[in-house]
Amino acid sequence: MAEPAEDVALSLSELFDLARRALVLHGVSAAHAEAIARVITQGQRDECHSHGLYRLLGCVRSVRSGKVDPRAEPTVRDVSPGVLAVDAHYGFSLLAFETGLPRLAEKARTQGIAAMAINRCFHFSALWPEVETIAAQGLVGLAMNPSHSWVAPAGGTRGVFGTNPIAFAWPRAQGHPFVFDFATSAIARGDIELHAREGKPIPPHWAIDRDGQPTTDARAALDGAMQTFGGHKGSALAAMVELLAGALIGDLTSMESQAFDDGAGASPCHGELVIAIDPQRFLGSDHAAGQARAESLFDAIVDQGARLPSQRRFEARERCMTR
Amino acid sequence: MAEPAEDVALSLSELFDLARRALVLHGVSAAHAEAIARVITQGQRDECHSHGLYRLLGCVRSVRSGKVDPRAEPTVRDVSPGVLAVDAHYGFSLLAFETGLPRLAEKARTQGIAAMAINRCFHFSALWPEVETIAAQGLVGLAMNPSHSWVAPAGGTRGVFGTNPIAFAWPRAQGHPFVFDFATSAIARGDIELHAREGKPIPPHWAIDRDGQPTTDARAALDGAMQTFGGHKGSALAAMVELLAGALIGDLTSMESQAFDDGAGASPCHGELVIAIDPQRFLGSDHAAGQARAESLFDAIVDQGARLPSQRRFEARERCMTR
Repeated sequence: MAEPAEDVALSLSELFDLARRALVLHGVSAAHAEAIARVITQGQRDECHSHGLYRLLGCVRSVRSGKVDPRAEPTVRDVSPGVLAVDAHYGFSLLAFETGLPRLAEKARTQGIAAMAINRCFHFSALWPEVETIAAQGLVGLAMNPSHSWVAPAGGTRGVFGTNPIAFAWPRAQGHPFVFDFATSAIARGDIELHAREGKPIPPHWAIDRDGQPTTDARAALDGAMQTFGGHKGSALAAMVELLAGALIGDLTSMESQAFDDGAGASPCHGELVIAIDPQRFLGSDHAAGQARAESLFDAIVDQGARLPSQRRFEARERCMTR
Repeated sequence: MAEPAEDVALSLSELFDLARRALVLHGVSAAHAEAIARVITQGQRDECHSHGLYRLLGCVRSVRSGKVDPRAEPTVRDVSPGVLAVDAHYGFSLLAFETGLPRLAEKARTQGIAAMAINRCFHFSALWPEVETIAAQGLVGLAMNPSHSWVAPAGGTRGVFGTNPIAFAWPRAQGHPFVFDFATSAIARGDIELHAREGKPIPPHWAIDRDGQPTTDARAALDGAMQTFGGHKGSALAAMVELLAGALIGDLTSMESQAFDDGAGASPCHGELVIAIDPQRFLGSDHAAGQARAESLFDAIVDQGARLPSQRRFEARERCMTR
């Protein structure tokens, strides 16, 4: 093993540039490299280490696997007045999201509620950067996607679901939006991977081994199946994600995505469902009252010493931005 | 205490008629009484005892409180191409749902995705009868509502959220739809009420007492605050329900609904958000393939001995229907 390298402090723009150049060096198009570097920089900025620079390894591995088209150009198709579909053509998901977003926002503003399917994309990123971008436009965002079939259903022993994250953002007139983004698995796959890399044990409710027994061994967990959070309720939500962001949008379930990978170890290839809602359209002249009502809710949470979701991440962001 | 009465077996139509007549006797209009009796009968049929005949007590108490207008006639307003709002005018929710449903289904079929806000309704019923009705029309249904602020946020000590159920249904070509309906609280309020009535202890993760300490005393729990399921993830979902089915639709949050009740002990008055999605519109000529993909998912769950959500309820239904 090599000596651990000395810590290096990078500015956000240096970090963005490092990520962008590393990707371009591996054949990723400028448009994809920038979309990916933006999100990786956001992850590092918010101290989400499992979604920061660490993810570059997976991106490059995915490109090298030959599965991903690192230069694919996403195309947008109008499905119905309230629905559009972006075909990523087997490229990474982020550029596809950026490409479809203006049309999604427009549809949400016209229709009140609208949905965007992203199809045939390779996915490695958290969903909060996407729903935060939607909230920055004054819209409510909801996003979800399957992954690989690492997660057993409640009462089962074998992987069927992906980690199947659900992310939500509510725009606030001042400051950061109300945002959550969580895996419907007990923990994110990336966290088990980090534990495995560091040789650390995992809590027993995270996963079962190949024989269906609970395990604290991160490597055994990666060979076995993860558990959903919250028992049968988390399991039900995980199934909903397979249905809405798989079957409904004509794209792969986590089981199919795993089979498609065929051991190549690329990022999962599947679809994503993004829903945008316009509170202005719902509330009209009562929009400010609706915003105030939401703020009272947040106050009631914070005033009793509880945290809003993403509060730690926003605090990390403040630290980073004022450094 | 009176002697316990002898058990009486009623047919479903006798049960429906008993519920309907009891309601009419208490001043509920025929249209409301039928909508309520239908859902109460469904609850009893599926052995959901806390949503069966037991709920009649709450309905009648709500009417007697003078808060509910038992003869209110719901009105429908078009909000935008993808959104409608039904004003229940302080009547019970179920007739409002039935009144808006045809327009919601029509919008979903035209737009691909559509939303229905139900406003100013008194709510006591489970959401699965509603999403099952949506699925029976070949549409995907998603419904949620706040209630009274009985549930503390993760890391908190005081009630802010309601039990805030989320229900989802996926239509299947054959047999029952894939359906779930769960409280984002650790348990349904009705279950704690039943434990309190029967003097039974509750598990320690269900609730905290007035001092914020975990309790196994059902009555102390009813005086304190319930917990969300799944820690901070369940808490995040509960907040989402307050935002989408409260702030977004210009209706009361659970805290406001509790204040509105002002100790009258009526069913909670608030709004409800119902989303309908048309898989046919999303998938076009790939609709059958999307259905088959969903069936493969269900097979993978059932084949390893795990249960689909609502499976117990459907088994109870079969028992009841073949009796």
